[in-house]
Amino acid sequence: MDKLIGACLVAQSGGPTAVINASAYGVIRTALDDDTITHVYGAAHGIRGVLDDILYDLDLEDEHELRLLLNTPSASLGSCRYKLKDYTEDDTDYRRIMEVFKKHDIRYFFYIGGNDSMDTCNKISKFLQKEQYLCRVIGVPKTIDNDLYGTDHCPGFASAAKYVITSCMEMRRDCNVYDYYSAVIVEVMGRHAGWLAGAAGVATATGDGPDLVYLPETDFDMDQFLDDVKRIMDERGDCMVVVSEGIHDKNGKFISEYGAPDAATDSFGHKQLGGVASTLVSYVKQKWGVKKIRGVELSLLQRCSSHFASATDINESFAAGRAAVKAAVNGMTDKMMAFHRLTDVYGDYACEVIPQDLSLAANTEKKVPREWINEAGNGVTQEFVEYVLPLIQGTPNLPLENGLPRFAKLKRIVAK
Amino acid sequence: MDKLIGACLVAQSGGPTAVINASAYGVIRTALDDDTITHVYGAAHGIRGVLDDILYDLDLEDEHELRLLLNTPSASLGSCRYKLKDYTEDDTDYRRIMEVFKKHDIRYFFYIGGNDSMDTCNKISKFLQKEQYLCRVIGVPKTIDNDLYGTDHCPGFASAAKYVITSCMEMRRDCNVYDYYSAVIVEVMGRHAGWLAGAAGVATATGDGPDLVYLPETDFDMDQFLDDVKRIMDERGDCMVVVSEGIHDKNGKFISEYGAPDAATDSFGHKQLGGVASTLVSYVKQKWGVKKIRGVELSLLQRCSSHFASATDINESFAAGRAAVKAAVNGMTDKMMAFHRLTDVYGDYACEVIPQDLSLAANTEKKVPREWINEAGNGVTQEFVEYVLPLIQGTPNLPLENGLPRFAKLKRIVAK
Repeated sequence: MDKLIGACLVAQSGGPTAVINASAYGVIRTALDDDTITHVYGAAHGIRGVLDDILYDLDLEDEHELRLLLNTPSASLGSCRYKLKDYTEDDTDYRRIMEVFKKHDIRYFFYIGGNDSMDTCNKISKFLQKEQYLCRVIGVPKTIDNDLYGTDHCPGFASAAKYVITSCMEMRRDCNVYDYYSAVIVEVMGRHAGWLAGAAGVATATGDGPDLVYLPETDFDMDQFLDDVKRIMDERGDCMVVVSEGIHDKNGKFISEYGAPDAATDSFGHKQLGGVASTLVSYVKQKWGVKKIRGVELSLLQRCSSHFASATDINESFAAGRAAVKAAVNGMTDKMMAFHRLTDVYGDYACEVIPQDLSLAANTEKKVPREWINEAGNGVTQEFVEYVLPLIQGTPNLPLENGLPRFAKLKRIVAK
Repeated sequence: MDKLIGACLVAQSGGPTAVINASAYGVIRTALDDDTITHVYGAAHGIRGVLDDILYDLDLEDEHELRLLLNTPSASLGSCRYKLKDYTEDDTDYRRIMEVFKKHDIRYFFYIGGNDSMDTCNKISKFLQKEQYLCRVIGVPKTIDNDLYGTDHCPGFASAAKYVITSCMEMRRDCNVYDYYSAVIVEVMGRHAGWLAGAAGVATATGDGPDLVYLPETDFDMDQFLDDVKRIMDERGDCMVVVSEGIHDKNGKFISEYGAPDAATDSFGHKQLGGVASTLVSYVKQKWGVKKIRGVELSLLQRCSSHFASATDINESFAAGRAAVKAAVNGMTDKMMAFHRLTDVYGDYACEVIPQDLSLAANTEKKVPREWINEAGNGVTQEFVEYVLPLIQGTPNLPLENGLPRFAKLKRIVAK
């Protein structure tokens, strides 16, 4: 294998997570320490920063601040949601990317992101190959949705799952505190895959979790749901429900598009729409007259809360970034770093980083297996719980200042 | 002082907090260890449990589980929102309470709660005195709102404040991650007092906090707000706002009652109402055309999230419960335990527990001083930040099981 000497570029893309910076640090630290890599750059706002030639010179950052990336949420280099066209139709962006790569002698490109970002990474990789511009391209996965194909799980999922589980445990204690009927309906991210909502089943296994969990992998039936809630309320006086934002009925219509049964309509006869939690709250209120019921949207925090992240997730995210650089320096290209679940010699959970074809990861979506959801479609199985549990282990060694998290403060000096 | 031998009853009331159980444990542990106290009971759901004669026998609980109350959120004995009538008008409830007290020989009564609970506690204390039933009654304060009079701060406030601050720090990193205009508006609890929303100013002081903070202590002006947001967006490309749920205009109308400018109206011409965050989101969208803007309601989690509570708050809450028992055993009655802020010999923060008259605490509300809010009414001063900072210090030593918080599991055996 030929030794490829040149600069390295890392970029982040898509929705932030608690650990996308840990992956970036895995890339940056390993690249800075490698002799074949001449310089380390970070693109501002993913591929947008490449197109605009705004690359941060990461050689100029303090090591101490870089290290804080391990516990800093969101994407410190900035992110984007820019979609590249097919280069067989329009290669303008690709030519510009290659031009900027040439200018800075970029020979290693690491793109950290989810489905769409792996697609971007794949297209760039294929274009550069076609143009015979020597550059090793590796994708590093990231998504709280956990829906990337070809990997046991995705960096970012476990920390988001731990946030959902812990929040459910805490809210469960709050929900049943009064001496009258009360309920809470929690809305969790996940448009097509229910991994994150399903993780709430781990809270149930501790004794402090939702009674009912609904995933987009099964069809949601409003009448069945209302009966489920009534049964639980009668049994225990309170009820906690977790739903994926993407739950839909058997005709494929999103429940969030139902609108409240009593919602006002605008002059065109359209109902005002809220989120799925507030829609379900309205239905329960109307059907059963429950007054003490709340909808809670976990919103941004489920993807950016880092102070109680999974240490396993942080370690694995760093390892994925590190393995990407090691593999590229050793000649690999056109791959995504994936996780393979192992059992170690003690019978405990272990995980190794393995390469997968970029094109495979880019175009397939992984959903929760139907057999990991109970028959009634209102909860998850013990197998699901056992899949999640090892991933959320470990409390991060959180750097603090004045009792609060100390996040990385990068200089972000733009390279000339 | 006469030694009063008899049983002790502890009860919890009002909205849960992260540390109301720590106060309960302060009472329970100290009472169990005291020779003059013959038995320790906990009322189910506050004063409701007394009226229904549902008292848990806390002598039968495992010490290990009781100790876990230090890190268990919400009210493990159950809470209530029951309001006692004035006994000069109707003393039915009071006679029933005295009857149950007599039955179990309750001679010490500790009521943990906020404004309304101190009122309940005060009325019971005065009634029992009038009836010459010997019982020492002490209130232990609790409220995330921090609006109790006669105490430097309230148990529960600091942990909720730390949750708000940390969440704002994390969301700030998420809010400015993309390369286009984006904004987030965070709604924090506090109907009349802005302590909790104002605490978000501590996040701003770290460099990762809201640009704008609005409290109910000043009048909110929609035009001024929209101008503030525009100015910040133009300056930095993104904007983070924190508001108390209770903000109102100069006529006293709640902003949450404005409704969205484009909201559909029902057949009576009434606008559909959301929370204050969603109302403000609608106004910003309509006025400035900002598309990437989110409203986030911290909802239940701000009052029940315990995994990153303030260790100072936990210690002080325990100390307040403990001091209540010690004082009562030594002859004190008809008081609320309050905090007095001190500077220790090293010039650092310290705090002592002092008794305050129950009647005083019961009927006065403490608001944020106007001079702790900036002139424009869109942020807090350094003085406010310095008030909050010492209270949120310390990371709790969180008992874990399978990587997740291990909450107390009480047997709650009802006394005969």
